[in-house]
Amino acid sequence: MQNITEIDNLIKLISKLPGLGPKSAKRIILKMINNRQELLKPLADSLIEVYKNVARCKICGTLKSNSYPCDNCENVSKKYNKICVVENIADQWAIEGSSIFQGYFHILGGNLSNTNKPRKEDLLIDSLIERIKKKSIEEVILATSATVEGQTTAFYIQDSLKNTKVKVSKLAQGLPIGGEIENLDDGTLISAFKNRKNLKET
Amino acid sequence: MQNITEIDNLIKLISKLPGLGPKSAKRIILKMINNRQELLKPLADSLIEVYKNVARCKICGTLKSNSYPCDNCENVSKKYNKICVVENIADQWAIEGSSIFQGYFHILGGNLSNTNKPRKEDLLIDSLIERIKKKSIEEVILATSATVEGQTTAFYIQDSLKNTKVKVSKLAQGLPIGGEIENLDDGTLISAFKNRKNLKET
Repeated sequence: MQNITEIDNLIKLISKLPGLGPKSAKRIILKMINNRQELLKPLADSLIEVYKNVARCKICGTLKSNSYPCDNCENVSKKYNKICVVENIADQWAIEGSSIFQGYFHILGGNLSNTNKPRKEDLLIDSLIERIKKKSIEEVILATSATVEGQTTAFYIQDSLKNTKVKVSKLAQGLPIGGEIENLDDGTLISAFKNRKNLKET
Repeated sequence: MQNITEIDNLIKLISKLPGLGPKSAKRIILKMINNRQELLKPLADSLIEVYKNVARCKICGTLKSNSYPCDNCENVSKKYNKICVVENIADQWAIEGSSIFQGYFHILGGNLSNTNKPRKEDLLIDSLIERIKKKSIEEVILATSATVEGQTTAFYIQDSLKNTKVKVSKLAQGLPIGGEIENLDDGTLISAFKNRKNLKET
């Protein structure tokens, strides 16, 4: 491939996106170049729009458009009594997609890990406490990952909420639906045994 | 997922790219938003650069930067006597990647199909004849696809070149490397039988 600086640069950037490498970057670039007006230009414009107008809400941590109040935490027509605390926006989207939860979200924007430390202040925990008081929240559901970091974070939040009256719960751990016992890791099996559910009253 | 117009719009556009759907689009967008300065902004800028500065060369059909003469057909330091004719730029990149061919490329930008007709004038065939004369080309290798459209296109070019002295060849057809006989289609098998190679002089 002859070197065209603009293309090389674009290949490098697209290759940094999740699931994409130089080969798929090239296919994507050719598709865009063959659809300059319908795809290449609108995509560039759209990225600029997102860059300019979309940011994390400083109160609840979700993505919001600068043009509107945050639909998650500033929408006055929504009256819930639960907040679900997640690590990142992808987690929020996954839970919303399952329709299992009706309530507010609170997006920490990370977890308390040993390696890649966000400071506790960065995790919007003060803002969470503020929201609980302001919105008369009755239950905080901790939906952080079932990893060491996620569970450390959940424990830290649980501890931060000990002086409030709010109920604090966390997601159940056990076998994932479709999980075959022989393929599960020890941690999941231990968790599933420890949290086993009684099926018959004795 | 709450509706943010800018994000919805970007998801729609990214989903149009080859190999990507709404789910991977969301993952990509979150990655970009979490890396606003290092990824989102540079990617938007890079797309604008490509949109403004990269276009197909009007002579040979490959991609070129407007800032420089075309490296494929206007680079005077390259002195080849072969031109390889391909349908699109992805084909050029694939052949360059294999390092099997040293010579000029000529990218038609499509093929003569019944359904999605590009006009014969659009396929840069007059320009091909012009190049052959100007660069004293000795061989034209037709590397169009082994499809009805690709072979029709090859035949049309062969016919267009009948009044020139240039040698015209096309790529061999047969078993692909690694191809298992039982899994090959009839067309490939017929082609492989017809073009079988004598291994022993009689």
